[in-house]
Amino acid sequence: MSPAAPAYRRLSVEERRSQLLEAALSLFAHRVPEDVSLDDVAEAAGVSRPLVYRYFPGGKQQLYEAALRTAADELRHCFDEPHEGPPFPRLARALDRYLTFVARHDAGFSALLQGGSVVETSRTTAIVDGVRRAAAEHIYSHLDVAEPGPRLRMTVRMWITAVEAASLIWLDEDKQPPAEELRDWLVDQFVAFLSVTAARDAQTAELVRGALAAET
Amino acid sequence: MSPAAPAYRRLSVEERRSQLLEAALSLFAHRVPEDVSLDDVAEAAGVSRPLVYRYFPGGKQQLYEAALRTAADELRHCFDEPHEGPPFPRLARALDRYLTFVARHDAGFSALLQGGSVVETSRTTAIVDGVRRAAAEHIYSHLDVAEPGPRLRMTVRMWITAVEAASLIWLDEDKQPPAEELRDWLVDQFVAFLSVTAARDAQTAELVRGALAAET
Repeated sequence: MSPAAPAYRRLSVEERRSQLLEAALSLFAHRVPEDVSLDDVAEAAGVSRPLVYRYFPGGKQQLYEAALRTAADELRHCFDEPHEGPPFPRLARALDRYLTFVARHDAGFSALLQGGSVVETSRTTAIVDGVRRAAAEHIYSHLDVAEPGPRLRMTVRMWITAVEAASLIWLDEDKQPPAEELRDWLVDQFVAFLSVTAARDAQTAELVRGALAAET
Repeated sequence: MSPAAPAYRRLSVEERRSQLLEAALSLFAHRVPEDVSLDDVAEAAGVSRPLVYRYFPGGKQQLYEAALRTAADELRHCFDEPHEGPPFPRLARALDRYLTFVARHDAGFSALLQGGSVVETSRTTAIVDGVRRAAAEHIYSHLDVAEPGPRLRMTVRMWITAVEAASLIWLDEDKQPPAEELRDWLVDQFVAFLSVTAARDAQTAELVRGALAAET
């Protein structure tokens, strides 16, 4: 390789792997996993098929799981939010990033969560469940709850599932309503969910009082 | 077969099929599908393995899908509720039947909805989605909505998904809180969900007014 041709410089193993995963994720964003072949990934990345196989000797299943892990890491970053200011606007900012993520991964996000895909395994389910758990932990931490009781945990997990359902419908309906409207709606539903639980659970009642007091 | 031995009379094809499916469902209620063999089903039904294969030549996958269809039909019946009286108590009665169904099918219900199972296919996903759609249609009909708009549809589908999440957690936590408490909580969350949407959607606002007026 000549140093005069930097565009063709040899990528490091890590760089090449990232490039292939990015190419795979952009294909999964527009087609169901069944319709993406390693040939397509090679073509999208501008490399040979043997090179894709060298990095992912387990074939499409291995590539899919690696791409899913990359996406899961990206999604976890959406939840990073400073512990500053009132909690519900923090949730709104995290949801903004989350909806951007959903829009970017589009078909891949739907295929993953809708189930019944040939590439779905107990491993892919475990990766998705790990992200759900991380989302719940972030919520508890922003609500300053060290030990969430069963009713609060159920409420938070129900809301997270409801958000996933909303995201799938949103993609199905050409991203209507607009992201900002959906985000505010989801935040309001979270507050409503917590308030319903607060009538039955002292821990939730206390944190709702605290969070709403911080708003004003 | 002697008419003096009615306990051993030959079952009709339909009766035998139902018996095998019931045996399968009771096994799936306590073990993940992976751990249920056709031998187990034969033993539970008190018949020979070849007989099970005669009814389900496609093996466990076919038996699983047939059992799932039986369970899905049973679940649809839970939604049958006369169009009489205020709507939210109707929802409460349907939820009572639903939670009885969930408790009865226990592990089978969890395995099905948690995903990543080896017996999950696009067909099993389609069966489950069919039940979800039926549940949503029942809700619209009880709310006297002929043409639900996008916001109402999203709200109803989010709540249905949240109920599924609550059911899984409930099974995980040894059916705590008690079914009646969970049922009331879910109804209250439905009302809260609708109310949040009502602030953004005229159709939902009108039906919430109507439903709450019918309560009193």
